[in-house]
Amino acid sequence: MSVDLAAVVQALGGELHGISTTTISGLASLETAGPSELSFLSNPRYRQQLLSSRAGCVIVAPDMEATAKERGACIVADQPYLYFARLTQWWKAQTRPQVDAGIHPSAVIDPTAEIHPSARIGALCVVERGAHIGANTVLKARVTVGEDCVVGERCMVHSGVVIGADGFGFAPNGDAWEKIEQLGAVRIGNDVEIGANTCIDRGALQDTVIEDGVKLDNLIQIGHNVRIGRNTAMAGCVGVAGSATIGANCTVGGGAIILGHLTVGPNVNISAATVVSKSILKPGHYTGVFPIDDNASWERNAATLKQLHSLRDRIKTLEKETQK
Amino acid sequence: MSVDLAAVVQALGGELHGISTTTISGLASLETAGPSELSFLSNPRYRQQLLSSRAGCVIVAPDMEATAKERGACIVADQPYLYFARLTQWWKAQTRPQVDAGIHPSAVIDPTAEIHPSARIGALCVVERGAHIGANTVLKARVTVGEDCVVGERCMVHSGVVIGADGFGFAPNGDAWEKIEQLGAVRIGNDVEIGANTCIDRGALQDTVIEDGVKLDNLIQIGHNVRIGRNTAMAGCVGVAGSATIGANCTVGGGAIILGHLTVGPNVNISAATVVSKSILKPGHYTGVFPIDDNASWERNAATLKQLHSLRDRIKTLEKETQK
Amino acid sequence: MSVDLAAVVQALGGELHGISTTTISGLASLETAGPSELSFLSNPRYRQQLLSSRAGCVIVAPDMEATAKERGACIVADQPYLYFARLTQWWKAQTRPQVDAGIHPSAVIDPTAEIHPSARIGALCVVERGAHIGANTVLKARVTVGEDCVVGERCMVHSGVVIGADGFGFAPNGDAWEKIEQLGAVRIGNDVEIGANTCIDRGALQDTVIEDGVKLDNLIQIGHNVRIGRNTAMAGCVGVAGSATIGANCTVGGGAIILGHLTVGPNVNISAATVVSKSILKPGHYTGVFPIDDNASWERNAATLKQLHSLRDRIKTLEKETQK
Repeated sequence: MSVDLAAVVQALGGELHGISTTTISGLASLETAGPSELSFLSNPRYRQQLLSSRAGCVIVAPDMEATAKERGACIVADQPYLYFARLTQWWKAQTRPQVDAGIHPSAVIDPTAEIHPSARIGALCVVERGAHIGANTVLKARVTVGEDCVVGERCMVHSGVVIGADGFGFAPNGDAWEKIEQLGAVRIGNDVEIGANTCIDRGALQDTVIEDGVKLDNLIQIGHNVRIGRNTAMAGCVGVAGSATIGANCTVGGGAIILGHLTVGPNVNISAATVVSKSILKPGHYTGVFPIDDNASWERNAATLKQLHSLRDRIKTLEKETQK
Repeated sequence: MSVDLAAVVQALGGELHGISTTTISGLASLETAGPSELSFLSNPRYRQQLLSSRAGCVIVAPDMEATAKERGACIVADQPYLYFARLTQWWKAQTRPQVDAGIHPSAVIDPTAEIHPSARIGALCVVERGAHIGANTVLKARVTVGEDCVVGERCMVHSGVVIGADGFGFAPNGDAWEKIEQLGAVRIGNDVEIGANTCIDRGALQDTVIEDGVKLDNLIQIGHNVRIGRNTAMAGCVGVAGSATIGANCTVGGGAIILGHLTVGPNVNISAATVVSKSILKPGHYTGVFPIDDNASWERNAATLKQLHSLRDRIKTLEKETQK
Repeated sequence: MSVDLAAVVQALGGELHGISTTTISGLASLETAGPSELSFLSNPRYRQQLLSSRAGCVIVAPDMEATAKERGACIVADQPYLYFARLTQWWKAQTRPQVDAGIHPSAVIDPTAEIHPSARIGALCVVERGAHIGANTVLKARVTVGEDCVVGERCMVHSGVVIGADGFGFAPNGDAWEKIEQLGAVRIGNDVEIGANTCIDRGALQDTVIEDGVKLDNLIQIGHNVRIGRNTAMAGCVGVAGSATIGANCTVGGGAIILGHLTVGPNVNISAATVVSKSILKPGHYTGVFPIDDNASWERNAATLKQLHSLRDRIKTLEKETQK
C-alpha cells in the first residue's frame, strides 16, 4: 500500500517542501524510517537525528524548516506531534478495513440497555440492565458494562475492561465483614479511553465519575466514588482508592497509588510508582520513590534508613557539643 | 420509589425518634442527603456534619441520640455503620429486580462441574472440569473457574476474575525454563468476595486456600499455594507471591506487595503500597512507603539517600572526634 | 490413581535406589509427603528435611545419594529440580484427561486469522483479523488476540490475557489529547507463557516484541514497543512502560515498575517492587524498596527523610567545625 504525500497535505494541512518521492508506504520514527517512509520531529533536541534520518519526508515545525530542507523533503506544520497524531488516524482510515457500527452477535446485551446505533459493541461483551452506551463509542471484545452505568460518546473501551463492578465496601461485624451494597453506578463522559483490563467500580451511594477526555491506560483500578477531572491521563497499573477526587489536566505515572478520601487539584503531575498519601492542591510535579541501586548498596542504605530518626538526633547532639 | 421509615425499623431494628417525614427516597451521606433521604453517623467526630445535615433521618449510636434529636428525626442503633450496611442490602432488595439463580445460557460449563442450583452463573463465564460452585454463590459476567477449583457458599465473584490459572513455576534448564505443571487447585471458603479482574492461581502440588469471609478487591494477584486466613481483607492492586501464608483478620492496603514463602500472622495491618519482605508475626500496623514530596525536594533527598550509609559513618567519626 | 516408580525412571531417567514401595500416588514436598508420595530435594541446605521426610521416595542429586539412602528409597538425578519439573509434566500427562487441539465452538475467530491445527483455542476467546496462532500453542479460556498479532509455537496463554490492545499514545492538543493510532502489532516468540489477565499492547509504529522463552506471570502490563529478550521471567503485577528494551535472561520481581524508553541489559535481576528509572547495562541484582517497619517507626523515619538533604549539609558543617 502506498499513499501520495500530496493527499496527506490535502487532508491534514501543512506545507510540503522539497519533495523527491511522491508516495510513501508507511510511517516510522526518524531512526528507523527508510526513503519511502514519512517521519516527524517533535522536539528540536533531536535535530541531529533529523539530519541523519533516511526518511522520505519529515514533518517539522516552522523553526526547523531550514534545517529540514538541508536534508530533503519535509512537511512544515505548527505542531508536528499533533500533526503526526492526526496522520496516524488518517493513515489507519486509509489502510485498514472499516469496522461497521453495531453489536457483535456474541455480545450479551440486556434488553433494557440503551446502545446508540453508531456505537460498536465487540465480541463477547456484556452490557447489563439499564446501561447506556453513547454515539460512536467502541467497546472492544470482552468488555463488561454493569447495571445502570453510562459510557458517553466517542469513547474507546479496550478488551477486558470492567465498568461497574461493586466498590469495595464492608462494615465490620465482629471479626467478620458485612457487605455494603453499592447502590451507585459509573458515569463516564465523552472522548474517554480506557485501557485493557482496567476496572472502574460503581459508587456506594452516589456515582463514580470519569469526566470528558480522560485517558486511562491498562490494568488501572478506580475505586468507588472516585471523580477524575477532564483530560486527566493515567498510565498503566495505577490504583485510585475510593472517594479520591482528582482534578482536570493531571498526569499520573504508571504504578502510582492514590489513597482514598483525598483531593488532588488540577494540573498536578504524579511520578510513576509514587504514593499519594495526602491531598495535593498546588499544581506541580510530585514524586516519592525509593531510588534503585545495586542490591548491596541498597541493603546498606535501607538498613540505615531504619535509624534515620535517631541519626538526626545524633546530629543535633553533635551540633550542641560543637557549639559549646 | 419511596420507602416508609417504619418499614426500615421493622426490618432492621433500631428505635425511630422525632420523625417528621414518613417516607424516604434514598440513602445518602450526611453532606449530600436531602430531606427525603436517610443518612448515618458512624463516627462521633462527624458530629458537626450531623448537626448541619439536611437528611430526613439519620442513623446514630445511642450516645448521639440527644444530639441527633436536636437536629430532627433519627434511628438509634447500637452500631450505626453495621446498621447502614444492612440497610443497603435491604434497600437493594426493595428497589432492584431480583435476579434468578441459574446458569446464563452463554456461560460455558463443563459437564463434570458441580454447580449448586441456588448459585448464579453470569453471562460468558467459564467453569471447567471438576470445578464446584457452592450454594447461593454468584459469579458475575465473564468469570473463569478452572479445573477442580472449589468456590464455597454465598461467595460473590466479580467480572473478569480468573480462579485457577497456573501458578508461576519453572525450573531453570540452562538459560531456559522448564515448566512445573501446577497439579494443585484453588479452594475458596464461604462468604468470600473477589473483585473484578483479580487472579487466584492454582497450587503447584497442594491447593491455594482462601478461607471463609475473606474480601479481595479488584486486580489482586494471589500466587500459588498462598493461604489467606478468615476475614482478611485486601484492597485493590495487591500482589501476594507464592506460598505466602497470611493470617486471619488482617488488612492489606492497596498496591501492597507480599513476598513469597513468608508468614504474616493474624491481626496484622499493612499500609497501602508497602512491601512485606519478611515474616511478621506480631499483630500491629506496618508501613514502608517513600513519602511523597515536590519533585525537586524528592530528587535532593533521594540522591542523598544513596549516601545514607556513609553519612552514618561520618556521624560516627564526628562523635569520636567530639568525644576526644 | 497410582504410578509405578520404575515407570517414572523409565520415562525420565535417573537411578532408582533402595526401593521399598513400588507405587506412588502423588507428588509432594518433603514436609508434607507421606509413604506413598514422591518428593525431591533441590537444595542441599534442606538436608535435615530430607532425613525427617516420610516420603516414599525422594529425588536427589548425586552428592546427596549416600544421605538419601540412609533414609530410604531415592532417585538420583543430576538436576533434581529440573527432574521434578519434568516429573510434574509426565504426571499430568498420566493422570489428567488429554484435551484435544482445536477451537472451542464458543470462541470468536475472525475468518482471516490463521490458527495452526495443533493449537488449542479455549472457550470464549477472541482472535481478531489477521492474527496468527502457532503450532501447539494453547489459549486458555477468555483470551483476546488482537488484529495482526502473532503468537508463536508451544505458547501457553492464560485466561483473561489481552494481546494487542492499543498502546497508550496521545499527543497534547491544547488541554485535550489527540489519539495516536497504534499501527504496529504484537509479535510473541515460541515457548512463551503469559499469566492470567496480563496485557501486552500493540506498538505505535513498529511491533511490541516478546522473544522466545519469556515467562510472564499474571496481571503484568507490557506497554507499546517494549522488547523483552529471550527467557526473561517477570513475576506478577509488573509494569513495563512503552519502548523499554529488556535483555535476555533477566528476572523481574513482582510489582516492579520499569519506566519507558530505557534499556535493561541481559542478566539483570530486579527485586520485587523496585522502580527502574534509568537504564541498567551491567548484569547484577538491583533493588529500590522502602524497608517495612512498624508504622510508628516508619512515620518518624519517613518524616526525617524529607530533611535528609539538609541533614547532609549539617554533617558537612559539623565536619568543618570539628576540623578547625
